[in-house]
Amino acid sequence: MSNPPAYELFAFWRTSATYRVRVALALKGLTAHEHIVNLDAGEQRSPEFLRINPLAAIPALVEPGHPPLTQSLAILEFLDEQHPSPPLLPADAHGRARVRSIALMLAADTHPLITPRVRKYLTTTGGFDDAGWRAWQQQWFGTGLQAVEQRLAGDPATGLFCHGDQPGLADISLASIAAVMQVFKISVEGTPTVDAIVARCNQIDAFAHAAPALQVGAPG
Amino acid sequence: MSNPPAYELFAFWRTSATYRVRVALALKGLTAHEHIVNLDAGEQRSPEFLRINPLAAIPALVEPGHPPLTQSLAILEFLDEQHPSPPLLPADAHGRARVRSIALMLAADTHPLITPRVRKYLTTTGGFDDAGWRAWQQQWFGTGLQAVEQRLAGDPATGLFCHGDQPGLADISLASIAAVMQVFKISVEGTPTVDAIVARCNQIDAFAHAAPALQVGAPG
Repeated sequence: MSNPPAYELFAFWRTSATYRVRVALALKGLTAHEHIVNLDAGEQRSPEFLRINPLAAIPALVEPGHPPLTQSLAILEFLDEQHPSPPLLPADAHGRARVRSIALMLAADTHPLITPRVRKYLTTTGGFDDAGWRAWQQQWFGTGLQAVEQRLAGDPATGLFCHGDQPGLADISLASIAAVMQVFKISVEGTPTVDAIVARCNQIDAFAHAAPALQVGAPG
Repeated sequence: MSNPPAYELFAFWRTSATYRVRVALALKGLTAHEHIVNLDAGEQRSPEFLRINPLAAIPALVEPGHPPLTQSLAILEFLDEQHPSPPLLPADAHGRARVRSIALMLAADTHPLITPRVRKYLTTTGGFDDAGWRAWQQQWFGTGLQAVEQRLAGDPATGLFCHGDQPGLADISLASIAAVMQVFKISVEGTPTVDAIVARCNQIDAFAHAAPALQVGAPG
């Protein structure tokens, strides 16, 4: 692509929520200039970054001349409205509700439980040791993925991807959780439908190129 | 209203996510027949309810002839698409992104941390006593509300409500958090913009009538 990036993206190599935005941009043929916010160094709590997102979380997407956009699912909806092709949501309202629900099962009811700020609290105030934190991760990744498996398996609305045969918002959310599970070396058993969809996602360049290990700042 | 309810709602008196759906239905002049899922009795984990939502969480909205819809924000988007007046989202894409982001700061990055399943884990496996659980609630309600305060205060897009002068998706999410904080007797200091918006919400019938204490099953 020879056009200059349309957006600036505040990002970190490892995070699930940044991954979602990277995939959505790529699926739509868009690029963003990335600014790294090193979560391991606490840069998300710097005064400069808190002006961009007072919740001290990434990603944030900046379109020149507009305030920063935060929260990955809000950013994906925005990108889908501004750049409708290919669509991230189905054409019918019931389908959109199904896709948004699956995305929220993962991005809202799974991922926020394993973020750095939760880890920090549990491993200090909460008294969790490394094994306790790992069991916590396993618990919520497992709960989320197994619930999504139950929702997808045997549902005629499920196709090659979460909803029909094209990847969209739900698949991006699902693949984003799988991507960070790989970083943390966590696996969940008994989710064959989920596993097959994630494998299909990873055959698509937009997903494959968003893999955490390939990002700037990833360990060598 | 003399029309029969258009929807069935699986609900519990106390929960923040059910509150959001109750307010949205009422703002749009819609009614739902409620089925109580007693979270304190573990009814969300019954085989019958797991067929409705494998994540064992409420609310679920059922429109006759369609599969159950889950995840409060997906339900609110659905209701807004099917019943556009009054709108829950602004007319412009940047405004919609801002409103969705504020809603997600609360419904995704705050509320999932204080749900019954998290409480169950922390107070058993996690070893938290009552004071530890209360400190955890305080931590995440405080983090979420203070971040929303920073986002709203001084932003020209903020009006009498989170975005302009009409209540919408962000206000419903904000009031839903305030409503359960009241149930749990948690308060957060230093959030005057948030407090003023919540007070305005509570002057509107659709919000006032959704108060947890007024629902079937609430303690007398």
